[in-house]
Amino acid sequence: MARIVQKFGGTSVGNLDRIRNAARKTAAEVTANHQVAVVVSAMAGETNRLVRLCTDLSRIHDAREYDTVVASGEQVTAGLMAIALQDLGIAARSWLGWQIPVETDDVHAKARILEIQTAELDRRLNNREVAVVTGFQGVSTRQRITTMGRGGSDTSAVALAAALNADRCDIYTDVDGVYTTDPNIVAQARRLNRITYEEMLEMASQGAKVLQTRSVELAMKHRVRLQVLSSFANPVGSDLPGTLVVDEEEVLEQEVVSGIAYSRDEAKVTVIRVADQPGVAAAIFGPLADAAVNVDMIVQNIAEDGSVTDITFTVPRSDLHRTRQVLEQIRNQTPYERLITDANVVKISVIGVGMRSHAGVAKRMFQALAERGINIQVISTSEIKISVLIPEEYTELAVRALHAAYGLDRP
Amino acid sequence: MARIVQKFGGTSVGNLDRIRNAARKTAAEVTANHQVAVVVSAMAGETNRLVRLCTDLSRIHDAREYDTVVASGEQVTAGLMAIALQDLGIAARSWLGWQIPVETDDVHAKARILEIQTAELDRRLNNREVAVVTGFQGVSTRQRITTMGRGGSDTSAVALAAALNADRCDIYTDVDGVYTTDPNIVAQARRLNRITYEEMLEMASQGAKVLQTRSVELAMKHRVRLQVLSSFANPVGSDLPGTLVVDEEEVLEQEVVSGIAYSRDEAKVTVIRVADQPGVAAAIFGPLADAAVNVDMIVQNIAEDGSVTDITFTVPRSDLHRTRQVLEQIRNQTPYERLITDANVVKISVIGVGMRSHAGVAKRMFQALAERGINIQVISTSEIKISVLIPEEYTELAVRALHAAYGLDRP
Repeated sequence: MARIVQKFGGTSVGNLDRIRNAARKTAAEVTANHQVAVVVSAMAGETNRLVRLCTDLSRIHDAREYDTVVASGEQVTAGLMAIALQDLGIAARSWLGWQIPVETDDVHAKARILEIQTAELDRRLNNREVAVVTGFQGVSTRQRITTMGRGGSDTSAVALAAALNADRCDIYTDVDGVYTTDPNIVAQARRLNRITYEEMLEMASQGAKVLQTRSVELAMKHRVRLQVLSSFANPVGSDLPGTLVVDEEEVLEQEVVSGIAYSRDEAKVTVIRVADQPGVAAAIFGPLADAAVNVDMIVQNIAEDGSVTDITFTVPRSDLHRTRQVLEQIRNQTPYERLITDANVVKISVIGVGMRSHAGVAKRMFQALAERGINIQVISTSEIKISVLIPEEYTELAVRALHAAYGLDRP
Repeated sequence: MARIVQKFGGTSVGNLDRIRNAARKTAAEVTANHQVAVVVSAMAGETNRLVRLCTDLSRIHDAREYDTVVASGEQVTAGLMAIALQDLGIAARSWLGWQIPVETDDVHAKARILEIQTAELDRRLNNREVAVVTGFQGVSTRQRITTMGRGGSDTSAVALAAALNADRCDIYTDVDGVYTTDPNIVAQARRLNRITYEEMLEMASQGAKVLQTRSVELAMKHRVRLQVLSSFANPVGSDLPGTLVVDEEEVLEQEVVSGIAYSRDEAKVTVIRVADQPGVAAAIFGPLADAAVNVDMIVQNIAEDGSVTDITFTVPRSDLHRTRQVLEQIRNQTPYERLITDANVVKISVIGVGMRSHAGVAKRMFQALAERGINIQVISTSEIKISVLIPEEYTELAVRALHAAYGLDRP
């Protein structure tokens, strides 16, 4: 007997047939004598439809009302999933964020979970009732409905798994696991049987869309065993391959590099000829942080003549306009010659915990790119990751070159 | 300064432009220094869509889950309406049934309101904040979402008006008031400026669809001044004609007959040759009541030979199948020769408080129908209403004849 949290994403509950299919996966676990809590997203397309209603109505809408509107999508799926389970003879009921409650802060549209009250869920799981829980939503201390941002259902599932001390958190999605890279770009991309939390975190934050970054952070913190599975590929009750996200010790044969990620959600900004003096970085990046612009890679050139320098950094493409506005505003206090911005860039990342103990990983990356004539604009590294910024048009070429260069093409 | 509850039905909030239009009507009342609570239905079509999801998934679905799914429609409208009001510079927030709370019993899908906690709404209305309240829904003592059946938003609005001691409850809909009869059938049908609670109750329960019957009962009980208005006809801020539903003393020039209603939701059942002895009516209608079949008109013929008789009654058309089942089951204990059922009938009702003090009202009805060769199958009367059951094909002819016979065609 195990306690399992299952999470079904929007495509996995995209219509009534798919909801029935998901319910059969839950029923299979119940039949195998497991306790199951199910976290559901809104039916595919619903969240976009609801967001559009709010944004079409008013560009500056109250985030509390936005959350009230948008959270209804998961409410519908939860009720339908409970009906589908009952139709299979499985005891089940839906739980909305406020009913559990899933207590969050009141940063609407981007709320963070503070606590999940589990006493009643616990009791019912022990009585073999399936709890169908709305993903993505909670309730603030002011008793308003909150939502956690796009992809928040992954985080709901992991937080629930942690709170319920679940043995496993199964993320059902439209792909059958985590791949060495995007199979749409590299035909030889392989599904990883296991990946470490650290690598998964880098993969997610560097552009792999399979899991929300915050859900991986939370899984790592609480040591929740995460499994990424396909809703569609696996017949019910069969062995589920998928990818298991686990501690480093559980990964037996560690490759030096586990995967290649890429993110097109990047824009490059260069501040030309700004004074090279203490405090200039703070004068630029402080106001950007205040404007909630998330600066990623940063490079400061060596000053040419000892008095002025160029500073280059990347921001999310959607924040480029706001970034320009902030930099125009600070120009009086922090003079510079001009701004150059470029949205036609991509960030390619090579990720692997094996880097810690292997030299020459970066060298191989730079060589592989140089051989294809790809110019690197910015580099940033962490202990288990090397990222480079290159022109966007080279995306596929670079990903394929690196996938081969690190031996990931081998079956 | 008055306190007003406004209720907008599904067509009045059917898309974003209509929500904006409704918000302008609210804003006009706020600008006129009134306190306003707004009750909203789901956007037109939404409730049907949500109901269909539940019924397509499983014919025998848990009513608690059904309520969870279906109540989401009003939740969306409430959030959008609050956004639309804020966009006009009006302070507003949405209130879901469980947030107020609107406490109901736990008869899911047909819940009745037990109490509405108004302290916080009261405080905010006094502070000139508009409360946008979801119609149709409440919360049970078990903290599950409940709904009140189709048209329940009217009842929500009247109950809220009573609880808030509102001066008026304005029901905005797609017609501009209560008519002497259906204008689709009688071109000369006139809008009534005023109608009594009792008449409105009969009109609603005899087939006029403008208000839910229970909402009128509630308005009568709590003496809530109801006004039926069009969302579309009246420009914002102008005089609102509509129909006022009020106490009898407030109706100055009372006609003998105020309106003609018809209901096609009828089926006739005749039990042929059942024993004419004490207890036979109880033996038939008791089991039907237990099966939640709502029997309306009843006629028992005089026994031909003193030992057997025929009993004829009407039931809602949707209950005809169940009625047959119940009558087959009791046949052993209560023998009869056979059943005759007929769904091709219509109930035509003539309604008016003036009947109390005027003789000859029924005679005029029977004459007018006889002149058109319309055969009356069943008759039932109340203090302010005469209803007849006739073949359905005569519906329009009968309604037109009666509208003329009682002088309602006069401008």
